Amino acid sequence: MSLAKILHMNIGDGESSYANNSMLQETGIRKAVPFQKLLIKGLANHNVFNDCFTVADLGCSSGKNTLLVASNIIDIVHEVCQENDRKVPQFQVCLNDLFGNDFNNIFKLLPDFYAKLKKDKGEGFGPCFVSAVPGSFYGRLFPNQSLHFVNSANCNHWLSQVPRGLESNGSNICMARASPPNVYQAYQNQFHNDFTKFLQMRSEEVVHGGSMILTFFVREVADPTIANCFAHLELLGQSLVDMIKEGLVRESDINSFNVPLYFPCEEEVRNIIEYERSFSLENMNAYQLNSDPYDKDYINMTDSGELSQIHAKNISKVTQAVFEPLLISHFGNSIIDILFKKFEKHVAEDLLKQKPKWLVMTISLTKK
Amino acid sequence: MSLAKILHMNIGDGESSYANNSMLQETGIRKAVPFQKLLIKGLANHNVFNDCFTVADLGCSSGKNTLLVASNIIDIVHEVCQENDRKVPQFQVCLNDLFGNDFNNIFKLLPDFYAKLKKDKGEGFGPCFVSAVPGSFYGRLFPNQSLHFVNSANCNHWLSQVPRGLESNGSNICMARASPPNVYQAYQNQFHNDFTKFLQMRSEEVVHGGSMILTFFVREVADPTIANCFAHLELLGQSLVDMIKEGLVRESDINSFNVPLYFPCEEEVRNIIEYERSFSLENMNAYQLNSDPYDKDYINMTDSGELSQIHAKNISKVTQAVFEPLLISHFGNSIIDILFKKFEKHVAEDLLKQKPKWLVMTISLTKK
Repeated sequence: MSLAKILHMNIGDGESSYANNSMLQETGIRKAVPFQKLLIKGLANHNVFNDCFTVADLGCSSGKNTLLVASNIIDIVHEVCQENDRKVPQFQVCLNDLFGNDFNNIFKLLPDFYAKLKKDKGEGFGPCFVSAVPGSFYGRLFPNQSLHFVNSANCNHWLSQVPRGLESNGSNICMARASPPNVYQAYQNQFHNDFTKFLQMRSEEVVHGGSMILTFFVREVADPTIANCFAHLELLGQSLVDMIKEGLVRESDINSFNVPLYFPCEEEVRNIIEYERSFSLENMNAYQLNSDPYDKDYINMTDSGELSQIHAKNISKVTQAVFEPLLISHFGNSIIDILFKKFEKHVAEDLLKQKPKWLVMTISLTKK
Repeated sequence: MSLAKILHMNIGDGESSYANNSMLQETGIRKAVPFQKLLIKGLANHNVFNDCFTVADLGCSSGKNTLLVASNIIDIVHEVCQENDRKVPQFQVCLNDLFGNDFNNIFKLLPDFYAKLKKDKGEGFGPCFVSAVPGSFYGRLFPNQSLHFVNSANCNHWLSQVPRGLESNGSNICMARASPPNVYQAYQNQFHNDFTKFLQMRSEEVVHGGSMILTFFVREVADPTIANCFAHLELLGQSLVDMIKEGLVRESDINSFNVPLYFPCEEEVRNIIEYERSFSLENMNAYQLNSDPYDKDYINMTDSGELSQIHAKNISKVTQAVFEPLLISHFGNSIIDILFKKFEKHVAEDLLKQKPKWLVMTISLTKK
């Protein structure tokens, strides 16, 4: 089955659902707001939108964050129009994610979303029309020249497929520090192809002068053999290996499992954008995030053993919300509970030695 | 809770799901094809669409019929373009239904739908972009002047709300032959307001020269005291009344339950369209349907008792697929199994006396 059919965050609203474990992503969305403001102010001055402002949120997922992006953008346009004494346009918000995403869950939130918009902005506002457009953003999603503003938070690090030629990656399940060089190369090539394709597809859909804001995970150093960014995925791989001895997982199954995730370094991203040529890079901004999103003081904290366990539990829940569907499609669902118990234990031990941080980058682009 | 949140066909793919009990509606969709052909030929000659042909399917529901409408329209446009030696445009298909509709189920069918399009029409075709736009079609759903073609099958007989002032309707659950005149009037007024609103909303969304095809149930005679069109809903009401004596349903609950369904007569529809003035009525065509959609020879058949029971079972399944969510929201879900057993029995008895037929009308409209 193709990745576009399998890959989605954990559905529903249970303890390990993505809806309840997406604080890390929420931070990413909030950090993008100043860049959105800057770009939308520019759009208003250039008369890119008149009657209707069409926004696409690519990889919107399904949870309380989903409508937050739309809400932020509408607020900014409203504010910009008032500052410039312009009529507020109609809004078309197109939510995109893969075919398996839980769109029904988002749609249930819409009546309250529309009611709040009307209450906050007045009867004459908009109207705003929210739609869902399922499919992979590595293909075309929208008609030619139909979008004014594209937002994508926490998605471009997902590859369109697991790269080919990873046989030598052994029991590593990602581009780990212990992976051989050809594995790095395979992942890097796949990202290069995918991100180029992403830009090409959007260049046909975004109007001249339209904008994109992309937020995704990056690598803190160019050299992948010392990059710490996959520290937790390495521990998830270790947890799977532990289960071989217990007869719960087959070694051959681990050897054929690799996560379609790549964290590029800043230089790579810049090069691909310049090489593809459809968009101007306006801004690049990177910031650190705690790997336990529930812990705001994490970076400066000295962990006791007890605190490590609390953070490890949170990190395990967040990791499960993101990776469970992928793991189930490869290993079946019987391993999940034990796997994440082992993972939590590994993370707690690891937290006593180091405190991994994620590096997130937000880039702003304008269609040439 | 508002009707727009409650009303939806039975979700999933079980025995009483709408997905498996929508043959009646499928017939309606097939009967609309010749009218679609006629209208789309007209559109191509008037250059209404160039780069992208945007179609809305209002009240698309969720089942195998859902993508059939899109598929038919795409086939017609493809054919018309080939006949006129024109480039086939891109397609944007906007699927609309209420917030509770099972859109996830439709999205799972999309990868195969896209693959089949590519196979049948070739690599250079389209592309076609399918989106979902949830909400009530009695309000705005799309930006100004954004649609070329609107289709709605089996929906306009659903009212935006249960009419007010139905206290005198007693244990009738619809506009029954035994209902008092003020009940007829209340239903008629509600339809007048709703259908007018529907036309007003679409008149802002459809481009000048764009088209609509609406298919819905109508009444075979103007006089509602002799109209047979609610025969089965009368029997469903009777089945609820039976359950009072058994202590399973309270009389007061039946008295406060009325179905938001109205079947207009031809004259009413024509008058509202003329009075509202945004659309020209191009065509009106009515045809009969068997009340058991699985029985194609129903009309000319002499029923034996055994055959009646088979048809009654089918009719009961179809009725349950459509009305179960409404009934559950009012009476709870404990009554459903018994209610539809009783209903099936009533229908089987009734079929020995009469063979009710549904009258369905397809109208074609052009935006002035």
